[in-house]
Amino acid sequence: MKVRASAELIYDFAEPTQIIGLIEAALTEDQAIISEALTVTPHRALLSDVGVGGDRRMRACLSGTVTISYQADVDNGHRLLLPVSGRQHSWSELPADTLTFLLPSRFCPSDQFQRYALREFGQAGDGVARVMAVLDWIDRNLDYVAGVSTPETTAAQTFTVRAGVCRDFTHLAITFCRALSIPARAVSAYAVDLQPADFHAVVEVFVENQWWLIDPTRLAPVEGLVRIAHGRDAADIAFLTTNKPCQLISQTIAAEAI
Amino acid sequence: MKVRASAELIYDFAEPTQIIGLIEAALTEDQAIISEALTVTPHRALLSDVGVGGDRRMRACLSGTVTISYQADVDNGHRLLLPVSGRQHSWSELPADTLTFLLPSRFCPSDQFQRYALREFGQAGDGVARVMAVLDWIDRNLDYVAGVSTPETTAAQTFTVRAGVCRDFTHLAITFCRALSIPARAVSAYAVDLQPADFHAVVEVFVENQWWLIDPTRLAPVEGLVRIAHGRDAADIAFLTTNKPCQLISQTIAAEAI
Amino acid sequence: MKVRASAELIYDFAEPTQIIGLIEAALTEDQAIISEALTVTPHRALLSDVGVGGDRRMRACLSGTVTISYQADVDNGHRLLLPVSGRQHSWSELPADTLTFLLPSRFCPSDQFQRYALREFGQAGDGVARVMAVLDWIDRNLDYVAGVSTPETTAAQTFTVRAGVCRDFTHLAITFCRALSIPARAVSAYAVDLQPADFHAVVEVFVENQWWLIDPTRLAPVEGLVRIAHGRDAADIAFLTTNKPCQLISQTIAAEAI
Amino acid sequence: MKVRASAELIYDFAEPTQIIGLIEAALTEDQAIISEALTVTPHRALLSDVGVGGDRRMRACLSGTVTISYQADVDNGHRLLLPVSGRQHSWSELPADTLTFLLPSRFCPSDQFQRYALREFGQAGDGVARVMAVLDWIDRNLDYVAGVSTPETTAAQTFTVRAGVCRDFTHLAITFCRALSIPARAVSAYAVDLQPADFHAVVEVFVENQWWLIDPTRLAPVEGLVRIAHGRDAADIAFLTTNKPCQLISQTIAAEAI
Repeated sequence: MKVRASAELIYDFAEPTQIIGLIEAALTEDQAIISEALTVTPHRALLSDVGVGGDRRMRACLSGTVTISYQADVDNGHRLLLPVSGRQHSWSELPADTLTFLLPSRFCPSDQFQRYALREFGQAGDGVARVMAVLDWIDRNLDYVAGVSTPETTAAQTFTVRAGVCRDFTHLAITFCRALSIPARAVSAYAVDLQPADFHAVVEVFVENQWWLIDPTRLAPVEGLVRIAHGRDAADIAFLTTNKPCQLISQTIAAEAI
Repeated sequence: MKVRASAELIYDFAEPTQIIGLIEAALTEDQAIISEALTVTPHRALLSDVGVGGDRRMRACLSGTVTISYQADVDNGHRLLLPVSGRQHSWSELPADTLTFLLPSRFCPSDQFQRYALREFGQAGDGVARVMAVLDWIDRNLDYVAGVSTPETTAAQTFTVRAGVCRDFTHLAITFCRALSIPARAVSAYAVDLQPADFHAVVEVFVENQWWLIDPTRLAPVEGLVRIAHGRDAADIAFLTTNKPCQLISQTIAAEAI
Repeated sequence: MKVRASAELIYDFAEPTQIIGLIEAALTEDQAIISEALTVTPHRALLSDVGVGGDRRMRACLSGTVTISYQADVDNGHRLLLPVSGRQHSWSELPADTLTFLLPSRFCPSDQFQRYALREFGQAGDGVARVMAVLDWIDRNLDYVAGVSTPETTAAQTFTVRAGVCRDFTHLAITFCRALSIPARAVSAYAVDLQPADFHAVVEVFVENQWWLIDPTRLAPVEGLVRIAHGRDAADIAFLTTNKPCQLISQTIAAEAI
Repeated sequence: MKVRASAELIYDFAEPTQIIGLIEAALTEDQAIISEALTVTPHRALLSDVGVGGDRRMRACLSGTVTISYQADVDNGHRLLLPVSGRQHSWSELPADTLTFLLPSRFCPSDQFQRYALREFGQAGDGVARVMAVLDWIDRNLDYVAGVSTPETTAAQTFTVRAGVCRDFTHLAITFCRALSIPARAVSAYAVDLQPADFHAVVEVFVENQWWLIDPTRLAPVEGLVRIAHGRDAADIAFLTTNKPCQLISQTIAAEAI
């Protein structure tokens, strides 16, 4: 699918503030950037780097009212969908760079869920079968409700409260997968057909020798996702991280098939 | 200093258990391995890889009673001590691979400490001066007490309870540094003169263009440390991570100057 | 001071919902109710009881859109202000019904603060002197900021985040007092001059043989408070507790000197 | 059943320490004390009071090494067992003094479990049927394991970790019941046949116009329980609460049918 994705973010920085931004489409094999434009108004010096895995990170020091705009046309037709079956790898078989994604992180305390995960999902085969069991659990047990979680909410809290938004669904799915010895990570994305339009957070799991994108909220088709960044959880893929509080004036996200 | 470090770990694995072990001295520029030996008894296939930054990770599938022994003579004389002053870098100046260590992690929820850190340490200059202020705070406010914390204890809990062990001291120091925009990470180590002898957890901060090792417990001289592994917090540097519960039979750690 | 206090609460109950309401002025020796009126529109059966300490609790089963209105003129001129000095009681001297307020509760985990409280406030004399030290700490260290806390926020989280609203200030002050062996409880109140007008949460401490009202936010003079209910923390004094989610349509609180 | 219960607690108090002790059999209608003796060696002044509901609380200021011994013969034959069916009361029908036990407390954050409880137990009828569904859930989902919890563990943590001891089983059962609008409280007890012998923590629920004792661990028959104290959770019924750290030298608890 060819997708036109765009973001316009307007912030007010009361004093000079260092920022890390993750809003550009990632440079990965499963998507091709046809065209794109990033502008910061008024103009400020931006430092960009491309991280491991193709994430593009921008850094700047901003002050006053600043508009960050990004628009890209992306062909994500190279993306494969999670197959109906696929093998789980032993830790020894896993590529070294996937091992980090077995470990607990800020919002995904998978260390606390070992007993639960084995009891609940231990009979569900392995690999894709377990991932499907996790996704089915999420679908049956979590309600999509705005306002019951905050940016500090962890997967343990979501497990108790049983409601949240895409970020919370993603964190709990990641947590269960890691507790089941399946590498899992968080991916931020533009998402065609997401209502209301917003940055989306989804999951990527490593089975059958490959990372596979999945959306535990089932709100946006994986075929319509444009990847932005990946990391251990939301802490790593925030579209804006700042060293001081700042004020969001407006945020407009869009993604449509073209 | 030349250090002879050794570890003998005996575990009982009730069923075949996948493990990741981090007990070998790291291959880094600031230490040289003179000789070393790693044995697993009874003999099992081990997979070893050397990660980014020189950490050596071993992987295996173990069952029954297994003894893991490691002994190394290491010359760590290439290590520099934290200077009395040194500049803090803006986010734009930082090397890309240090940025991860600005972000919150499982046991270091630095996102919750921004207000406190600025209020408490905001006047303490920057760079080394801030690090020294953090270390001084830790020294004045935390009691070294075994038994008040668990492997699940976070820096937020330690901040409240005001007591813990090396792991807790390290997590709180890291948390404060990150909240102050200083990259900080956890390092596991063998430590000469540590009483009682054990694996040690210390902090590494990035200022003045370099990572510097520091021990917030002040229990072991940095000159006597042999690095093992580094990561965002204790979750990344556990000497043994397993996919199932197992039983520690005995653990003997030693480190002495030679 | 004679105070006219009023509340108008409009809720929508999607299905029959059991409620406990605590919005009427308490029947206590330190305030006299001159006149009052409670109405529920449309009319529903209300069960009222007067609890230990004079709190008036109403119970009902409500559905549809319901308006609860209360207006009272209250003379609170019998209230004494915290004296400049006053003795702290040993546990053996305390009246039996104050002992509950030494113990931790849902939002006031004072058990975790024993070490901190003794270190920070241990030199501050006892009784009123310690209470004053706690209030001074709160004033110096907490920022009054709406939106950083939720109804689930505990005093431990507020201690880390260093900001909150009246509920959070009250919880942390109570927590410190209990950790210092001073009985402390939460009181809901109408408050003259509170901006913006709202139900207020304040603290009551037991020293010098008596309970004393204090406002750790310093936003409303104690002389202008009309007591509603007291309890271990916000869980006990919520103006509305329901057994199902419901929707607040509007809430108008007022209190003025007459 | 006639039960001989005894406790011998030896503590070392490094400095004068205020204590509240709850180790004597309660004075309630459902048990009769045949004989009893409480001694403190060396002799210290004890203050005793009988609280609401018959709990007997002792207070003292202790220092040095102190032995507290209690022995009682109790006839608990007046206790009724939870019937196979029984009605749940609406909030308006409940006796006023049971309402506190609907609210969340330090270790039982029932406010966070409303959505889960309704989803999991909402179809299980009401009253005794719901209580039985809760007990069945606890039995199927929690493992009795010493060492995975601490005195700070909350029911939310136990819900995630799925293991604990009697205190944790009790807290989670109470939490579920409260989230289902059933008053529930914690009771400490001597328990015949408990292995290993120790103080026991059980649950009391209010249905069918009465409080009923139940043991969610199923480790000790309710017929063999001698009540000590009741409260909102373990914070209220600790056999020893102190205002300073102290050291337990030994603790010997016994209960046998006579």
